[in-house]
Amino acid sequence: MTYCVAIRMDAGLCFVSDSRTNAGLDNVSTYSKMYAYGVPGERQLVVLSSGNLATTQGVIGQIKKDVKQGSVEGFSRVRSLEEAADYVGAVSLQQQAKHTGGGKSFEASFIIGGQIQGGKHAAFLIYPQGNHITTSRDTSFLQIGESKYGKPILDRMISQDIPLETAALSGLVSMDSTMRSNLSVGPPIEVLMYYTNSLLVERRYRFEDSSEYLRKLNAAWDKSLREAFGKMPPIAWSQAWDQVDSASEN
Amino acid sequence: MTYCVAIRMDAGLCFVSDSRTNAGLDNVSTYSKMYAYGVPGERQLVVLSSGNLATTQGVIGQIKKDVKQGSVEGFSRVRSLEEAADYVGAVSLQQQAKHTGGGKSFEASFIIGGQIQGGKHAAFLIYPQGNHITTSRDTSFLQIGESKYGKPILDRMISQDIPLETAALSGLVSMDSTMRSNLSVGPPIEVLMYYTNSLLVERRYRFEDSSEYLRKLNAAWDKSLREAFGKMPPIAWSQAWDQVDSASEN
Repeated sequence: MTYCVAIRMDAGLCFVSDSRTNAGLDNVSTYSKMYAYGVPGERQLVVLSSGNLATTQGVIGQIKKDVKQGSVEGFSRVRSLEEAADYVGAVSLQQQAKHTGGGKSFEASFIIGGQIQGGKHAAFLIYPQGNHITTSRDTSFLQIGESKYGKPILDRMISQDIPLETAALSGLVSMDSTMRSNLSVGPPIEVLMYYTNSLLVERRYRFEDSSEYLRKLNAAWDKSLREAFGKMPPIAWSQAWDQVDSASEN
Repeated sequence: MTYCVAIRMDAGLCFVSDSRTNAGLDNVSTYSKMYAYGVPGERQLVVLSSGNLATTQGVIGQIKKDVKQGSVEGFSRVRSLEEAADYVGAVSLQQQAKHTGGGKSFEASFIIGGQIQGGKHAAFLIYPQGNHITTSRDTSFLQIGESKYGKPILDRMISQDIPLETAALSGLVSMDSTMRSNLSVGPPIEVLMYYTNSLLVERRYRFEDSSEYLRKLNAAWDKSLREAFGKMPPIAWSQAWDQVDSASEN
């Protein structure tokens, strides 16, 4: 599996992805799932991918080819993020059908986000069927892959008005939680931050397996959670027992 | 869906379960998923259930009937927790097959835990196929139902040596996270704590939808997490940019 998340807030966009792929437990590899294309001052586009590796590699390959050839519908010439999302959806469907005629096991999901001059910054989730959804004021993040383990922390922490640094930390903690609970998600972890209207990607980082920072973050988070439990209101057991049927069987 | 968790530690056992059942989004009901049977000083058995509601109600009904009739294999006479787990597995298979001949949509999972005089306290997870697993020194909790959202907090917090109160709080936070991320899990929340060798259930609590305590816990946890983020090591962005390819496409 995979775990990727994109967070859209007023201040910008934050992307976090893992790099583990597997086809069975004894066929585990490492591939980046983050692809970034940009023309400083004009456009920045980031794609995260999840699903069948042949499909996702085919899609990213086609995107690169279209950039090189300057295709009208490609990343270098597309006029809006929504058009870019439509394009990724179409390429995904082509790739799924290319060798096999398609089918559930060739499916892939993508997130695309960024900004094109004259438009707003945004993120889209592209389903295996090629259609897409975007974020809203109330739904500020999109996830693909093994998304459940890391969702609670995002549900609690993410809103439109947080700074990018908080979003990046939330994304990393969400990733850390997922890696801890699920073997199929693993480092290197990539993080990319995009500041609204900058039309530049200044911050992209790759945390290796041996990353001292990831280790520190994990330890600090564990410690904070333990401290947090110390501050929770104690369960009101004294009232408790009165409120339930005290018969031996209920 | 459902979310139930049982935690086994040296100090005892802690059980947490929700009470929401649904068959489609417009057919939502409330049923307790925790059944406790005990003879003070002799045995305490707790069952949590998840899956097809007709099956789980049939199983609990049969367990109660066998207790009333004093069946040898029933909860009132069974000699060990493992036997009790075998018995629940057998009853589950009977109920699944009773009206329908069985099939995936009639499946149910159970957790049984407790202690019988002369034996150790323990918990078992019973699969829809009737077989079961138990906890170990390294795996101190068992989950059934919608288990992914609530797993990271348990993975971080639970070990053999924690006090029961910490386990109960962890279970409640795990439940709170699950409710927040998944509509099909909801209150009332039931919590039962069993102290090793007590052979008594002194603490069982039901938190209603309107529970002031659950509201407080949720707010306190949110606040603690926000504070925790303030204490995380800042991402070392200065090193970051040097370490990745700074070409516009990578």
